[in-house]
Amino acid sequence: MEMHWMADQVVYEIFPDRYAIGQPYTSETKLQLPMYTDDAHHHGTDGDYKTRTWDQLPVNDPPDNPPMGKDFFGGDLDGIMDHLDHLQELGVTTLFLTPIFFSPSNHKYDTLDYFTVDEHFGGEAALRRLVQELRRRGLNLILDAVLNHVSDIHPWFLAAKAGSETYREFFTFSEDGSYLCWRNWNQQPEMNLSNPAVQNILFRERDSVLQKYLEMGIDGWRFDAAPDLGLDASRSISRVIKERFPNAALIGETTHFGAAWVKEDVFHGLMNYYFRSALLGWLGGEISARQMNHAAEEYFCGYGMAGALCSWNLLSSHDTARLKHVLPESWQQELAIVAQFTLPGVPVVYYGEEIGMEGGDDPDCRRPMVWDRTRWDTEALSLFRQVISIRKARRELRRGTFVSLTQRLDGDAIVFLRYTEVPQEVSLVVINRSVEPLRQRVMIPHSHLYHDLPMENLLAPGAPYVRMGQGYIDLDVPQQSAAILVPHDRLYPHYRFFKERMNI
Amino acid sequence: MEMHWMADQVVYEIFPDRYAIGQPYTSETKLQLPMYTDDAHHHGTDGDYKTRTWDQLPVNDPPDNPPMGKDFFGGDLDGIMDHLDHLQELGVTTLFLTPIFFSPSNHKYDTLDYFTVDEHFGGEAALRRLVQELRRRGLNLILDAVLNHVSDIHPWFLAAKAGSETYREFFTFSEDGSYLCWRNWNQQPEMNLSNPAVQNILFRERDSVLQKYLEMGIDGWRFDAAPDLGLDASRSISRVIKERFPNAALIGETTHFGAAWVKEDVFHGLMNYYFRSALLGWLGGEISARQMNHAAEEYFCGYGMAGALCSWNLLSSHDTARLKHVLPESWQQELAIVAQFTLPGVPVVYYGEEIGMEGGDDPDCRRPMVWDRTRWDTEALSLFRQVISIRKARRELRRGTFVSLTQRLDGDAIVFLRYTEVPQEVSLVVINRSVEPLRQRVMIPHSHLYHDLPMENLLAPGAPYVRMGQGYIDLDVPQQSAAILVPHDRLYPHYRFFKERMNI
Repeated sequence: MEMHWMADQVVYEIFPDRYAIGQPYTSETKLQLPMYTDDAHHHGTDGDYKTRTWDQLPVNDPPDNPPMGKDFFGGDLDGIMDHLDHLQELGVTTLFLTPIFFSPSNHKYDTLDYFTVDEHFGGEAALRRLVQELRRRGLNLILDAVLNHVSDIHPWFLAAKAGSETYREFFTFSEDGSYLCWRNWNQQPEMNLSNPAVQNILFRERDSVLQKYLEMGIDGWRFDAAPDLGLDASRSISRVIKERFPNAALIGETTHFGAAWVKEDVFHGLMNYYFRSALLGWLGGEISARQMNHAAEEYFCGYGMAGALCSWNLLSSHDTARLKHVLPESWQQELAIVAQFTLPGVPVVYYGEEIGMEGGDDPDCRRPMVWDRTRWDTEALSLFRQVISIRKARRELRRGTFVSLTQRLDGDAIVFLRYTEVPQEVSLVVINRSVEPLRQRVMIPHSHLYHDLPMENLLAPGAPYVRMGQGYIDLDVPQQSAAILVPHDRLYPHYRFFKERMNI
Repeated sequence: MEMHWMADQVVYEIFPDRYAIGQPYTSETKLQLPMYTDDAHHHGTDGDYKTRTWDQLPVNDPPDNPPMGKDFFGGDLDGIMDHLDHLQELGVTTLFLTPIFFSPSNHKYDTLDYFTVDEHFGGEAALRRLVQELRRRGLNLILDAVLNHVSDIHPWFLAAKAGSETYREFFTFSEDGSYLCWRNWNQQPEMNLSNPAVQNILFRERDSVLQKYLEMGIDGWRFDAAPDLGLDASRSISRVIKERFPNAALIGETTHFGAAWVKEDVFHGLMNYYFRSALLGWLGGEISARQMNHAAEEYFCGYGMAGALCSWNLLSSHDTARLKHVLPESWQQELAIVAQFTLPGVPVVYYGEEIGMEGGDDPDCRRPMVWDRTRWDTEALSLFRQVISIRKARRELRRGTFVSLTQRLDGDAIVFLRYTEVPQEVSLVVINRSVEPLRQRVMIPHSHLYHDLPMENLLAPGAPYVRMGQGYIDLDVPQQSAAILVPHDRLYPHYRFFKERMNI
C-alpha cells in the first residue's frame, strides 16, 4: 500500500483572526475598516462587533452572552503570508486554517456563504495569493469544511423559514417550526445531509464547495464535526472527492476514538483527540502509563496503520486549553512534545505553541500570536526545531510501524519501537514520567537491533552511546526525561553493522 | 506444513580442540606433533602456537594479545568419535561442531581454506570416519559455516592485496587500501557476498563449500554471523541449498532477536540467544517474570511456530560464560534446564554442561572437557538425562504449540501449556522462581484437560497426582522449583478419559 503524503507532514494550525495582520495594515488601521466598525457590515446579527488591539486578550463579556465570537483582532490571510519564513524555519510543511468563509463571527464556524472567502481575511484574492505562495514554497494547505451546520442567518435557512419548500428540505424542521441544530444551539441549524440537493451543492458537483477550492489549489480538507456528518455522508464525501482529487488529504474531526471514520472508504486520518487525551492524561497524572500504552496501541490498531500514520496528533487546538495550561511543568511539556513527534501520527502544532504561548480554555486559547521575540520561550522553540528535524531525518517516525514495549516494564514510563522495512530505520523511544531514573533491562524483539550495535540518543547529542545486548538493552534514562535511541553505525572505520548491499 | 526433523533433536555443541584427543594419541603425544611445534606449520601468523596439557586452563596471555586463539589443547574429530557412547547415553541426537576447516587458530573462525579439514582435527579422513559412524548410530551432524569473513592470510585475500583484480572483488577495499573487516578486526576481512564469483565458490556450485560437505553426508549447516551475511545472502544460500538438499537443516547465528532470518525462504531456525537472554535474565534477577513471558511469546510468534520449534535454545555456548557461572545457585540452574527442555525450541547442550562444568567468559568457557568422572556433577547429569528422556517421550514438548498462562498469575513464576493436535499430548509447565510456593488457582483454557483428569508431575515421579477442576487447576508448586504436569490416564481400570477412538 502506498502511504499518503499526509504521513510525512508537520502541520501547523492557524486561527486566522489571531495570527497576524497583513501588511500594510496595522492593528490600528485594520480595525478602523468599515467591515469592523460599520453595523451594516455586521449582517444583522445580534450585538455589535467588538475590536481589540493585538496586545489585548480575548474575553467573553458578558460571560454567557451568545452568540459569542464577535470580538475581532483583525488577523487575515496576508498576515499568514508575511510569516511563512517563520513557519519554514520551524520546519512546518502543511498549514491548516480554521474556517475562512463568509460568516458573522471571528471563528467562522457559522457559515453565511461557502463560496465567498470572508472579507475579514482578505477575500478570495488573498486566498489565491496564499495558495500560490505556498505552492512556490512547497507547502500544503488544508482548509476547514464545516458542512454539518450553517449560520441561522444563512440565506438557505432564511428562505426555509420564509416557507421555501426547497430550502426547508435543506434542514430538519418539526411541525412546530423548531429545527435540529448543532448541540441545540439554534444559531447553528444542521443541514440535512441526506438531501441530494444539499450533497450536490456541498460536494457532488464540480462547482460544489469542496471541489471549488480543491480546483483552486488547496491540498485537502479537514471535516468539522465528523460524527455529526455521520458515517454515510462522510463516506459519500470521501468517495466523490477521491475520484476527482486522488491526492487530496481528507481529515475528520473526531474528538473521541473515531476509528470508524478512518478507513479505506472514509477519511485518511482523524484529529487524534484520543492521542491527546491519553498523553496529557498520563503526563498530568489522570491515567497510568499502562492505560496510556493501551490507548496508543488501540489507536494504532483501531485506525489501521495508514489511518494512524495520517491522523493528526495534537497537544492543543482552538478548542482546547494550551499545553502550558494543561501541563504546567516544563518537563511535562517536553515529554508531551517528544511523544507528539515520535508516537504514530502527524504532529499538529497549534499556532504559538512553538514559542510557548499560554492560554486556558476557549477563548483564552485564541490569544493573538506573539510576534515580539523578546516574549518567546526560546527553549520551547529550540525543542520544537529539534524534534521536527529529528522527525524529518527519521523515516521510521513518519512511516514506521509501532511496537509497544511498555507492558514489560515496571515504573511510570512508556517505551516503544518504530521501524520500517529498511533495516537501519529504527527508533527506540523512551518517555520516563517517573521521579526515578528508568534503569531496567528491556528485551528488544527486533530483527535489526544487533548485538553490540551502538545506540545514540538523538535528544542528547554527544552523550555516550549504549551498546545493544543479546536481544536486550540496559536502559538508563533520567527521571522525567525522554530518549530517542537510534543505531549509530559510524563507530568503526572499517566495519558496518548495516552493510550497503542489504538495502539493494 | 510438515515439521522439519530439527524440531525433534537434542543438540550437543562441541568445540573440537577442547573435547577429546582421539586414540591412540594422548595430550603429551598429540601436542608433540610438528603441526603444533614446528613454526613452518603456523602459516606465517604472528606469535607462536602455545600448547597446553588437558588439565590446564585456557588463558589469553598477554590478555589483549591479538590474534588470540593460538593456545592448543589437541582435541580432534577422532576424540569426539571415542565418546559417542557418552553422548548417546545422555540422549543427544545431533552434534554441532564449531569450525573444522583449515585455519591458523584454535577456534578456526578465521578460515584459510574451506575445502580442507584442519590437520589439527585429523583432516578429511577423520571427518569421513565421523560422518560414517554418526550415520551408523543414527546421529546427525551440523557444521559451522563461517562465510562472512576469512583469515587475512587466506590466499584469496593475499592475492587481492597483491593486486589480483579478480580477488580484489572478493572483498571490499577502499581507495586507501583499507578494507571492510568483521567488527573492525583487520585479521578477518569480510567477503563481498554480492559478488557472483564468491557466491559460486561458497554455495552455488555443486562443488562449493556448502554443497561439498552436504554431499559428503553432513546433515546441515549453522551460519556464523547471519546478520553480517545479511538477509539477501542468507536467502540466496537457503534457496540454493534447499533445492538440492531438501532435508538439510539450516540454522542462523543471530545473537539478538533475529526473526527476519527464520522464515520460509531463509533459515529453518536460529541460535536463540533471545531465549537465553530472557531466561537467564529472569532467573538471575535482571528482568521480571512478566518480561520473560513477553520474550517467550515474542520469539514463538515472531519466529513463527516452525521457526521457533527449530531454533536452538541454548543456555551457554563457546561465546558465553557457562550456566554455573551466570547462575550460581543450583535451583537457578535446575529451573534453567527445565525451561530449556520445555519452552518451544531445540535444546542445545554445550559440551560439559551436562556434567556441570564451570567457566566464565571466553576463553574460560572453552576449558577442556572433563573426562574424570569423579569430577562430574552427577546431579546435573541425572537432571539432563531426566529432561532429555521426558522431551523424547512427550511429542508436545517438541512439536506442540505454546500458550502462556503467566499473565494471569501473581508472583514470580511462568506457567504455560504445550500441546499438539493429539488430545493426550499436552503438558502444563510451571517454573516457580519465587521464594514462596506457588499456590494459586489457574484457569486452564484447553479442550483436552477434562474435569477430574488426574495430572502427574513428571519431575516428581510417585508424587500424588492433582485432579483438574472444572476448567482450572489448583497449583501447589514449591518455591524455586518446577513441575511438568501431564495427564495420568491410568487411574481407573475400566475408564479412559482419552478414548482410543479419539485418535482415529
